[in-house]
Amino acid sequence: MRTLEHPGVEELTLDAVLSALADPVRRIIVAQLDVGHEDQACIAFDLPVSKSTSTHHFRVLREAGIIRQRYAGTAIRSSLRREDLDARFPGLLDAVLRG
Amino acid sequence: MRTLEHPGVEELTLDAVLSALADPVRRIIVAQLDVGHEDQACIAFDLPVSKSTSTHHFRVLREAGIIRQRYAGTAIRSSLRREDLDARFPGLLDAVLRG
Repeated sequence: MRTLEHPGVEELTLDAVLSALADPVRRIIVAQLDVGHEDQACIAFDLPVSKSTSTHHFRVLREAGIIRQRYAGTAIRSSLRREDLDARFPGLLDAVLRG
Repeated sequence: MRTLEHPGVEELTLDAVLSALADPVRRIIVAQLDVGHEDQACIAFDLPVSKSTSTHHFRVLREAGIIRQRYAGTAIRSSLRREDLDARFPGLLDAVLRG
């Protein structure tokens, strides 16, 4: 089974996390993962962008360490790495989602 | 006397603020303004970049609404817009500076 690469919690950087969160579409994804199901297929997100752009945004979030993605059959399911983010950058995610 | 343009507090956006703070040199500037004098000349900052790159970083911070810049003779002095940032995005600056 294929797996997707994720940075470890100690590898998360403010540069990558802030860059990733600086995009409004990516913040929509994060906000929806924060209040919704723990584990959502990309297709469940109602985003104002094309599918390929959406796929790009999910990859940026994964590579920054903000979300975890895993294959589930032919789909990819995503979840927010809230515990890792809160451990590494306390208060940051809440401040961004409030903003 | 020349003046420099600054966005109003209601014009601050998370996109611009997070993008600006995603750069490590810009976070050094912000951290130094946060703990140091309220109003510092650019030359007071010991930054690991050239003068022109440094000038660019200050402009990005000003245009994002993170710092205020004013002419003082031939120099430009900078100060952190902490109250504006805290009003608009509570907790964000502290979370970033802690990170």
